[in-house]
Amino acid sequence: MKLYSYFRSSASYRVRIALNLKGISYDYLPVHLLRDGGEQFAPSYREINPDRLVPTLVDDAGVPIPQSLAIIEYLEETHPTPPLLPRKPADRAYVRSLALQIASEIHPLNNLRVLKYLTENLGVNEGAKNAWYCHWVEAGFSSLEARLAGDARTGTFCYGDAPTLADLCLVPQVFNARRFSIDVNCYPTLARINDNALQLEAFAKAAPDRQYDAL
Amino acid sequence: MKLYSYFRSSASYRVRIALNLKGISYDYLPVHLLRDGGEQFAPSYREINPDRLVPTLVDDAGVPIPQSLAIIEYLEETHPTPPLLPRKPADRAYVRSLALQIASEIHPLNNLRVLKYLTENLGVNEGAKNAWYCHWVEAGFSSLEARLAGDARTGTFCYGDAPTLADLCLVPQVFNARRFSIDVNCYPTLARINDNALQLEAFAKAAPDRQYDAL
Repeated sequence: MKLYSYFRSSASYRVRIALNLKGISYDYLPVHLLRDGGEQFAPSYREINPDRLVPTLVDDAGVPIPQSLAIIEYLEETHPTPPLLPRKPADRAYVRSLALQIASEIHPLNNLRVLKYLTENLGVNEGAKNAWYCHWVEAGFSSLEARLAGDARTGTFCYGDAPTLADLCLVPQVFNARRFSIDVNCYPTLARINDNALQLEAFAKAAPDRQYDAL
Repeated sequence: MKLYSYFRSSASYRVRIALNLKGISYDYLPVHLLRDGGEQFAPSYREINPDRLVPTLVDDAGVPIPQSLAIIEYLEETHPTPPLLPRKPADRAYVRSLALQIASEIHPLNNLRVLKYLTENLGVNEGAKNAWYCHWVEAGFSSLEARLAGDARTGTFCYGDAPTLADLCLVPQVFNARRFSIDVNCYPTLARINDNALQLEAFAKAAPDRQYDAL
């Protein structure tokens, strides 16, 4: 398999963790989102991903799959061990809803292209841009903290004692939050789960600063 | 089952279509996002959905499930007929990626709370707010149109000749786009699929103007 990735993209980071947890080896193809006006806009990449976003997984048959959560569900279906979703439908829904709270409610608002639109098209200054960023992270983290702190299913990880799709979304979002100087310790359950996850080599070696395009 | 819904919420609209297609009867519990400063902020609703968003499905065991895509995957697992995802993993990934292109890249940017932040916190005027809205719909629809127009799997619907998760996301987004006067005919494949879907009663009766909280 091949993964088109950018070291700092948190959607790419999610998929890197999934590939590592499942022990799938892959070729890492860097797409630098800032260099030369953005390598994601190159015609060659556009053919692979018309939305011009990272990541894109190219499976062994050569089929490109965009969208991190679609990729992770695909890996789950084709490489079921270890599982990244629980067995029972209600628990699977719970884990997916935690993941989507990050992937659909926090992250899209803080994407590079959105921050660029704020500054370039709306003339938003650096301070107001950072406030926007923090607002959506803090709104999302507050409700996630409330859910996780109040749920008996919370364990070492978001759901029980093994990592799931929810943790794959949480850890990259915590990484991003810290880049914007958000005090993650205000969300003690999230901070604890993040620390637990980073003890695992599958999470640690997926970190942005350990990708070769970061060096 | 119970569905907390707002007639105009496109995430609620997706779930209403899914419930209709699968022939599941449900109690419709309206949450008016604008009345009394927003009924989603009421403490009673906060207990059900700490993110204070609609929709929330409450299953027959009384468990609340937030996030429309988590709800639809749950319905798919518990009520598999008719299927809303294809059988093969690569095709499932394709359909999920189409759905996520809408649910994670277009819709979150145009949510009510985001538009409110733009006007109230960033002082964006009505024209610039509408331009923001249209920008993200047009960016997303352009790449969706490119994918669908160029893929042999496109049929009466986004994938083949029966509705899938992708159509459940497309139709509400087209409805929203038209509310903001976007010319959907610029995306002929999307417009055609939308028209086909609305021929089905399951789609037609899920439309915002047919919900009783719209009346």
